Amino acid sequence: MAPVVESRLRVRYGETDNMGVVYYANYLTYFEVGRTDYCRAMGIPYSEWEAAGVYMPVVEVRCRYKHSARYDDELLVRTSVSALTPYSMSFSYSIFKIPEERLLVHGYTRHGFCDSRGRLIREPQPFYGMLLELCEDSRLKGGVVDPSLHRA
Amino acid sequence: MAPVVESRLRVRYGETDNMGVVYYANYLTYFEVGRTDYCRAMGIPYSEWEAAGVYMPVVEVRCRYKHSARYDDELLVRTSVSALTPYSMSFSYSIFKIPEERLLVHGYTRHGFCDSRGRLIREPQPFYGMLLELCEDSRLKGGVVDPSLHRA
Amino acid sequence: MAPVVESRLRVRYGETDNMGVVYYANYLTYFEVGRTDYCRAMGIPYSEWEAAGVYMPVVEVRCRYKHSARYDDELLVRTSVSALTPYSMSFSYSIFKIPEERLLVHGYTRHGFCDSRGRLIREPQPFYGMLLELCEDSRLKGGVVDPSLHRA
Amino acid sequence: MAPVVESRLRVRYGETDNMGVVYYANYLTYFEVGRTDYCRAMGIPYSEWEAAGVYMPVVEVRCRYKHSARYDDELLVRTSVSALTPYSMSFSYSIFKIPEERLLVHGYTRHGFCDSRGRLIREPQPFYGMLLELCEDSRLKGGVVDPSLHRA
Repeated sequence: MAPVVESRLRVRYGETDNMGVVYYANYLTYFEVGRTDYCRAMGIPYSEWEAAGVYMPVVEVRCRYKHSARYDDELLVRTSVSALTPYSMSFSYSIFKIPEERLLVHGYTRHGFCDSRGRLIREPQPFYGMLLELCEDSRLKGGVVDPSLHRA
Repeated sequence: MAPVVESRLRVRYGETDNMGVVYYANYLTYFEVGRTDYCRAMGIPYSEWEAAGVYMPVVEVRCRYKHSARYDDELLVRTSVSALTPYSMSFSYSIFKIPEERLLVHGYTRHGFCDSRGRLIREPQPFYGMLLELCEDSRLKGGVVDPSLHRA
Repeated sequence: MAPVVESRLRVRYGETDNMGVVYYANYLTYFEVGRTDYCRAMGIPYSEWEAAGVYMPVVEVRCRYKHSARYDDELLVRTSVSALTPYSMSFSYSIFKIPEERLLVHGYTRHGFCDSRGRLIREPQPFYGMLLELCEDSRLKGGVVDPSLHRA
Repeated sequence: MAPVVESRLRVRYGETDNMGVVYYANYLTYFEVGRTDYCRAMGIPYSEWEAAGVYMPVVEVRCRYKHSARYDDELLVRTSVSALTPYSMSFSYSIFKIPEERLLVHGYTRHGFCDSRGRLIREPQPFYGMLLELCEDSRLKGGVVDPSLHRA
């Protein structure tokens, strides 16, 4: 499986603000679209994680904004896994404007593995095993971020 | 208890859109602020309804937009109960700009009484009894909307 | 051109609420996706309307909620023009769950034709002419809603 | 003027998600409430910045999530200026649950000073002068973050 998953979306009118550009919090929603597509591409939709009692609340987010997106812009979100530890994982995202492929925004989110009550779970199976295999393939090792996966 | 509950809020930047005004869907969030405050003023916060297993999903909404609100405008939401039946209730809302009290938006939402699986519940107690008493006080009778409660 | 335009989208996690279903205001955003796609299919993306100084603020919305959508559900939005007058137009929407095509939500929005300051414009060209032609094709006549276009 | 400004808000139903807690992107909206209140407390509402042609788009955000907020929770946002340079400024935020004052989320946003076209402006007056005075009072110096202002 490819270590980078691509999502396409169009900016909605309601996602813009008084400045005429996408409101900064909405890029975190685009990140979510990216990781949802990532989990599906990996073979386990995130809805199945939750159905199996495994939740992944966000514990940290960082985001840098280079250029603005506007209403009806078509965007490309590139998502990859950038870190994996027994209790957490991180996704990295780069958002580009199509067709120029101009980088607009990049960032990452870190997630804990939790049960439905928010208690940490160690290496939730079968998800963890699949992620580990994926990360070994792409030379990620326990908690070490592979800089080559960071697209920006 | 007064049959009309007032809420005050300020327009957030993220609630505006490319047109420089509040995005139309966000007034439904302001309606929600109004009915949350209504339930609290009535003595039973909506969170306690859900804790008791009673949910009130929206089954219908209607909204008319007269004038626009902008970033940082201070708004007044007037909320009242406009109908009550054994299986549903309706709230009416009028949103004004402060200080002029210019009417911006008005509308209503109708809600079913449901359990956590979305099945209809008849006259959920003790909530229904309290609502009935409130409605009798304000001359609402089973399902009949009292026009005097509609502020616009 | 077909009088009904179809859009597909997936429910985002951030669009759900504490009840585990899509928050009611977010269907209005799905309506917006529908009319954006409608304008594009008609040959004039809405961004070009605004670039030409023609705005279409919502003046009324009505929405009925039959069944809930959940995270990651794939939805189909069917959008059509249901009324046209010299100063306004209306879109009708029906939202279905894929693959069953179960009707979840239906409603309409009415929009005024305005300039950038919010003043009404009569029959803004070339948009109005295109809409009129479209509506005549589908037997809509000035302000009269064709019930056959209402899918629910 | 105090270097920390406090805002109070209640979690709205639409801000929660399928996990029963506030969706992670919505804390960035709470940050916005904090900096709006900060600018007002400083004597220059942000709407007046924009009216004067000075915009402050976000160029970076970082956020750490310690504990979750739920529907109807009352939250306290503590906002301070944590850095000032000729072309940018940073706000720091800590969000607590009331009444326990448990720290839920903390983070910062960095903003560029721009004109309406997004071009950088150096030391926009009179805002910059006021900020500088404020920062000197609280021992912030050009671009250096005062750790004592970071509440978490």
